[in-house]
Amino acid sequence: MAEGWTDAQLSCDDFLGGQLKILQPLRGYRAGIDPVLLAASIPAGAGDCVLELGCGAGVAALCLGRRVPGVALTGLEVQPDYAALAHRNAVDNRIDFTILTGDLNDMPDELRQRQYSHVIANPPYFDRRSSTAAQDAGRETALGGETPLADWVKAAARRVAPKGYVTMIQRADRLPELLAAFSERLGSLEALPLIPRRGRSAPLVLLRGRKSGRAAFRLHDGWKLHKGKTHKHDGENYTKATACVLRNGSALPFPA
Amino acid sequence: MAEGWTDAQLSCDDFLGGQLKILQPLRGYRAGIDPVLLAASIPAGAGDCVLELGCGAGVAALCLGRRVPGVALTGLEVQPDYAALAHRNAVDNRIDFTILTGDLNDMPDELRQRQYSHVIANPPYFDRRSSTAAQDAGRETALGGETPLADWVKAAARRVAPKGYVTMIQRADRLPELLAAFSERLGSLEALPLIPRRGRSAPLVLLRGRKSGRAAFRLHDGWKLHKGKTHKHDGENYTKATACVLRNGSALPFPA
Repeated sequence: MAEGWTDAQLSCDDFLGGQLKILQPLRGYRAGIDPVLLAASIPAGAGDCVLELGCGAGVAALCLGRRVPGVALTGLEVQPDYAALAHRNAVDNRIDFTILTGDLNDMPDELRQRQYSHVIANPPYFDRRSSTAAQDAGRETALGGETPLADWVKAAARRVAPKGYVTMIQRADRLPELLAAFSERLGSLEALPLIPRRGRSAPLVLLRGRKSGRAAFRLHDGWKLHKGKTHKHDGENYTKATACVLRNGSALPFPA
Repeated sequence: MAEGWTDAQLSCDDFLGGQLKILQPLRGYRAGIDPVLLAASIPAGAGDCVLELGCGAGVAALCLGRRVPGVALTGLEVQPDYAALAHRNAVDNRIDFTILTGDLNDMPDELRQRQYSHVIANPPYFDRRSSTAAQDAGRETALGGETPLADWVKAAARRVAPKGYVTMIQRADRLPELLAAFSERLGSLEALPLIPRRGRSAPLVLLRGRKSGRAAFRLHDGWKLHKGKTHKHDGENYTKATACVLRNGSALPFPA
């Protein structure tokens, strides 16, 4: 287990065009755009209860809290120092966010007794049965955690209310495994590929399922992150819609 | 079992802009663009052996034979009258195509002793455990056949040569089921969604896998069938690339 960080070991990074200031360890797991995209895809409204499994420093939940006033946010994080950091980030950004420390396979009682309109997660991307670990222990837990993807889905499906949604962002190369896990416990599955540029394959995918949903699986046209077919200029060239998500905190809705 | 058709019960339809003339029953299973797209996606070359499971009247195999001179085509069809029609279509179009009558769960010996560089199939789209049968018996076998999707994949994986490809076209809402079946027996899976128009979800998907392939699953940006975001004019408005596939017999390659 990591020992926490001094302030000198943290950076303060802007998300949503500066609407959020997030402290993250300079060495360790650092959020990219993935939790921002996940949060933007959640159709929560005021009064909805949202649980994030594996919330890390809190980027996804806090992005959602900033976009949707009145949403009730809870996070579960297995690493106590990341949980403490998420709490600090919530306070600093003045967003209500309850963070519990614990393992998703052995949830705190406080969570077991509740159900949520939305459960969200950005589970570790690498299956360490077939890849190499990161050096930093905290980063490794976030990137290649030993909890199988199926356990993330099982935990999420248990905590989601009837008709509620489970939404995860994951590497697209693990879609077969993720679909199998979702299919066992949820219905009305929808996959939204995240495509870097027109014509490219998807490195990431958003997958959501509905508790007791009965609709057939839907595969949506991919959401394009960057303009054009090739990278032409230095600096970012996000599509207008993606820039709105990342810089203004707009929603990234699953297509109707 | 159907009893065959008189010529008055058949129509003669153009495919590939008239490069193929295909006899099909007026009542019964009639090919749309799906087998044309399937054939266009197969990267076969002269000398390759290709097996189509459930070849019906032969549209997919014959499209491939027209595009790739020197390919060796074999078809398996469970309905004898469709098998006879496929044979007649092959002769009329002067394309070498060996058609065997039989069930994919009980293949003729002639097939069991061989392996193919490509196995292709357009399996029935409807799972009759949760849908209603077509009135015409032959059409019903083609649309809602009782053979589970997993059996199609199993049969294909058995007949494909090492490093060879299995490619199927199927309704996208059955992608979870199809991916599970492919994952069990094939590697290097790639899904190519077929999208009617930009922003729409995919009704169909091409999925291919490679025997003994070890690459990670890839989810490609969707192939767009029609131009624009809405249907504006009467008549077809295929994208240029799709029109080339359907009218000129061009390839529809999986992205590199």
